[in-house]
Amino acid sequence: MSRYWSEIAKSLTPYVPGEQPKLPDLVKLNTNENPYGPSPKALAAIRREASDDLRLYPDPEGSRLKAAIAANFGEIKPAQVFVGNGSDEVLAHIFLALLKHERPILFPDITYSFYPVYCGLYGVAHETVPLTDSFEIRPDDYFRANGGIIFPNPNAPTGRALPLAGIQRIVSGNPDSVVVVDEAYVDFGAESAVALVNSHPNLLVVQTLSKSRSLAGLRVGFAVGDARLVEALTRVKDSFNSYPLDRLALAGACAAIEDHEWFERNRHAVVKTRSTLSDQLAALGFEVLPSSANFVFVRHRQHDAGKLAQQLRERSIIVRHFKLPRIEQFMRITVGTDEQCAALVSALREILSA
Amino acid sequence: MSRYWSEIAKSLTPYVPGEQPKLPDLVKLNTNENPYGPSPKALAAIRREASDDLRLYPDPEGSRLKAAIAANFGEIKPAQVFVGNGSDEVLAHIFLALLKHERPILFPDITYSFYPVYCGLYGVAHETVPLTDSFEIRPDDYFRANGGIIFPNPNAPTGRALPLAGIQRIVSGNPDSVVVVDEAYVDFGAESAVALVNSHPNLLVVQTLSKSRSLAGLRVGFAVGDARLVEALTRVKDSFNSYPLDRLALAGACAAIEDHEWFERNRHAVVKTRSTLSDQLAALGFEVLPSSANFVFVRHRQHDAGKLAQQLRERSIIVRHFKLPRIEQFMRITVGTDEQCAALVSALREILSA
Repeated sequence: MSRYWSEIAKSLTPYVPGEQPKLPDLVKLNTNENPYGPSPKALAAIRREASDDLRLYPDPEGSRLKAAIAANFGEIKPAQVFVGNGSDEVLAHIFLALLKHERPILFPDITYSFYPVYCGLYGVAHETVPLTDSFEIRPDDYFRANGGIIFPNPNAPTGRALPLAGIQRIVSGNPDSVVVVDEAYVDFGAESAVALVNSHPNLLVVQTLSKSRSLAGLRVGFAVGDARLVEALTRVKDSFNSYPLDRLALAGACAAIEDHEWFERNRHAVVKTRSTLSDQLAALGFEVLPSSANFVFVRHRQHDAGKLAQQLRERSIIVRHFKLPRIEQFMRITVGTDEQCAALVSALREILSA
Repeated sequence: MSRYWSEIAKSLTPYVPGEQPKLPDLVKLNTNENPYGPSPKALAAIRREASDDLRLYPDPEGSRLKAAIAANFGEIKPAQVFVGNGSDEVLAHIFLALLKHERPILFPDITYSFYPVYCGLYGVAHETVPLTDSFEIRPDDYFRANGGIIFPNPNAPTGRALPLAGIQRIVSGNPDSVVVVDEAYVDFGAESAVALVNSHPNLLVVQTLSKSRSLAGLRVGFAVGDARLVEALTRVKDSFNSYPLDRLALAGACAAIEDHEWFERNRHAVVKTRSTLSDQLAALGFEVLPSSANFVFVRHRQHDAGKLAQQLRERSIIVRHFKLPRIEQFMRITVGTDEQCAALVSALREILSA
């Protein structure tokens, strides 16, 4: 710390992302990256854009990408789309533009751990709403005075999805608040709330290209909702950084969104592997929460999760373990390739039988 | 506006960047882009990075880029370097982490127009300090109580540079404040204050790869200063977006920083063209402020600047005109290629003699 720091800088408790070790031969199942490379069309578009035109600023509005995203959803107009430097940046702008009110916002007690960090950054009051004992979001728990509501669907790190009817119940029951549904993992099996945005002016849906488009390294996220909600985000963005997306990210993201065939093939492959992995883990005695994401959240009644994660690490397999109340006996395991998952299951079998 | 907007979202007056028209055959001299393409080594590095590895998150710390920047300066350690998604994002974090104090910050009355926007975004009080009649920063004007000081060097949009001795005077005279020197244009002829950071713990220097590295389209900026100042920025960054720089930007930026030969050749070419352009504009009766940047700031006593800019636009040449007090009779003209500058001079000759 130093006397030059602002009070905000002193008070922050920053988010800690999953580690990105620079080791070879690692089975890396800790940060929910897609095990397969992105669309070859996205890679080709990026290579084409790596030209002398990089001397020029990108389109500050990202108009072509907004149009591609809108067209991909169908009933959505480009003015209903906001794009940013990863969904984390999009979420940050949402907290400042749409969730900072007098009343505290609500989010689940077990959820994406960046939410309370944004609250600290922007001075947003918040209250947490406990998940049920089976780690589900119960819509009726969100019927109380609030300054806004945010939750991931499927939730992280549980992987459990809330059906569209439940989301609609929360959104309809809170007409005076913005409800943000953070759909980072939605393409792996949950129902998207984008279907509800045209009938609900208080609903904002956030998605990312990091997971189901295999582009975590490109940093592109977006939000879809009523054009007036998007306008608030644009005002904050234009007061922060005019050009959040570089030319390569814009070009690659457009091509990725437009490659429907790659997208369908990829997500089905991940879902198929998840199903096999879940069965194998259950056979080893793990409780596996029903997952609609590209990871599984599991615990073993006879084995400590922190210790298991450590033993896996000794075998060059890394998974994520959160030392947090209610979930400290769980491991979050990213769905890798079939080979990676087989290596994980084999290592766990060895550890459990030792 | 909508009832869902936060008070902040309602109150903002966003920054308006120079336009990025999508017209062909335009002589685009309005946003200070470098007229030459970036280092071929940077383009090659980007193409190499456009691989299946894009499925993986980037290094959240940007360690290799920090090391490359530190090595490029010599006496600087990687822990003294902060990297961000363009210098605009770096500046935004600086306003929140290091310039938000009880006392108002100081910046020139004529300067980068994003500074008051950041103040609005984060609730930072500010006072402006008039430039002299010849549009110079006078260091002694900054000897008064303040919560921080920020100015570009060379200043924008004037292009005038403050010599290193003047910067040192401001930094030494304000030991209780952070002094931020925004060196977006420094490589075109001013002295960098990076030479002072090891002896002044309250000095932070910001640079960008947008101008002198021809990478406006890649969005990479950085700050150099005392490690404790950098730590405050890192805390804010890690509370906002863990991965502000994508893999392509990190790879391209490293290669660009390391290509010394390209860098020297490019900046000397721009400086040479600036010199010719300045002489030719003076011969046409323009007052040309002495520029240390990749643009010139000029006025003509007999011709209205707004009208001149409009007449140039009708000839497919765009320059920047600010409708602001004290400078509304100036045009800011980016130094283009020799051919672009010849086209500009020829068009102006025609307009003035009409």
